Amino acid sequence: MNNQKRQKDDIKVPEPTLRRLPWYLSNAKLLKQKGEHFVSSTQMSKEINIDVSQIAKDLSYVKISGRTRVGYDISELINVLEDFLGFTNIHKAFLFGVGSLGGVLLGDSGLSHFGLEIVAAFDVNPEKVGTSINGIPIFHSNEFKQKMKEYSVKIGVLTVPIEIAQQISDTMIAGGIQAIWNFTPFRIRVPEQIVVQNTSLYAHLAVMFNRLNFNNDIKK
Amino acid sequence: MNNQKRQKDDIKVPEPTLRRLPWYLSNAKLLKQKGEHFVSSTQMSKEINIDVSQIAKDLSYVKISGRTRVGYDISELINVLEDFLGFTNIHKAFLFGVGSLGGVLLGDSGLSHFGLEIVAAFDVNPEKVGTSINGIPIFHSNEFKQKMKEYSVKIGVLTVPIEIAQQISDTMIAGGIQAIWNFTPFRIRVPEQIVVQNTSLYAHLAVMFNRLNFNNDIKK
Repeated sequence: MNNQKRQKDDIKVPEPTLRRLPWYLSNAKLLKQKGEHFVSSTQMSKEINIDVSQIAKDLSYVKISGRTRVGYDISELINVLEDFLGFTNIHKAFLFGVGSLGGVLLGDSGLSHFGLEIVAAFDVNPEKVGTSINGIPIFHSNEFKQKMKEYSVKIGVLTVPIEIAQQISDTMIAGGIQAIWNFTPFRIRVPEQIVVQNTSLYAHLAVMFNRLNFNNDIKK
Repeated sequence: MNNQKRQKDDIKVPEPTLRRLPWYLSNAKLLKQKGEHFVSSTQMSKEINIDVSQIAKDLSYVKISGRTRVGYDISELINVLEDFLGFTNIHKAFLFGVGSLGGVLLGDSGLSHFGLEIVAAFDVNPEKVGTSINGIPIFHSNEFKQKMKEYSVKIGVLTVPIEIAQQISDTMIAGGIQAIWNFTPFRIRVPEQIVVQNTSLYAHLAVMFNRLNFNNDIKK
């Protein structure tokens, strides 16, 4: 086991830190495009409006050290962050439920730039099974266990209707899936060792609508 | 001003509550599909694994009261939650940046079921300007101010490259946009009265990858 792995074993990075690291990455990429070579945490703090001590603390989790007076080497910062965030390794995934959102995610080549490659999808709709989207084959759901043996997949993307979200999650986990990216607004229950990332576009919409109405009501 | 409006004026619902309400909604919809008529907070607590007192507290923000021994009327709960979350009113939106994710959101008819209707999109790519996706016209970005006068729009969906995310946000706000749904991994800065909802798929991927690696390292 190398040092990097050992470090990961010892320290579980807090989720808020993990959510901020992509901001530093996108800021570093932007500065690089502008022709900059170094960035200080003070400069970054002004650019993205995060406390300078918070930035230093967050970056202490990744293997990079700034130089006095000049700050971080931008190219190094980009490489280290992309590597740390898992964007440089391709993680293979299966997608479950080729509805409107599922179809959209199969078509979005953008996800592969960030390390996620959907290699196959599952559905029960006879009009979809046997076809492919963007070169990704769509299999019948009852072929899942067999396909787990053929592909080396740890991640499942969940875009099924809510009434089967729990059942499909259970099936995924029984088949060996270790992480579920849940796009449904349903709160799935999983064993402790299974990673769940909830991305409910509808929950985000709800927050936005409510805040917008709140602001408009205040103005009245 | 009616009572509901007054209530919104007085109480700003906490964001964690707003994020949980769609879970209650999807659970209620599921129970309705199963033919149930009433649900107690205890039952809901078991179904979605949230503390019963938390559920009661969250639901106290919406205008619904349960009945002793039988609980909440499920149909009423669905109506009240959908209304409260803003899913029953159509909110018109402009989309900025018809790249891969932008194109995907224009094609996703699913968003309109939750109250968001993208009525027009903006880009500078001459191959896209003048065309339409899913019936939604794509205009040149410099037509934005004019189009704000034609459409009644308060929401802007931001799916541009990170290097212009701030500039386009500034343009949106100057033109009268009041809420920005930011899909970029860039942290935009806005005046206090502007609502920003960040939905960075890449930040969610980063959290998932990191947790998955952490679990796999532990097993070694």
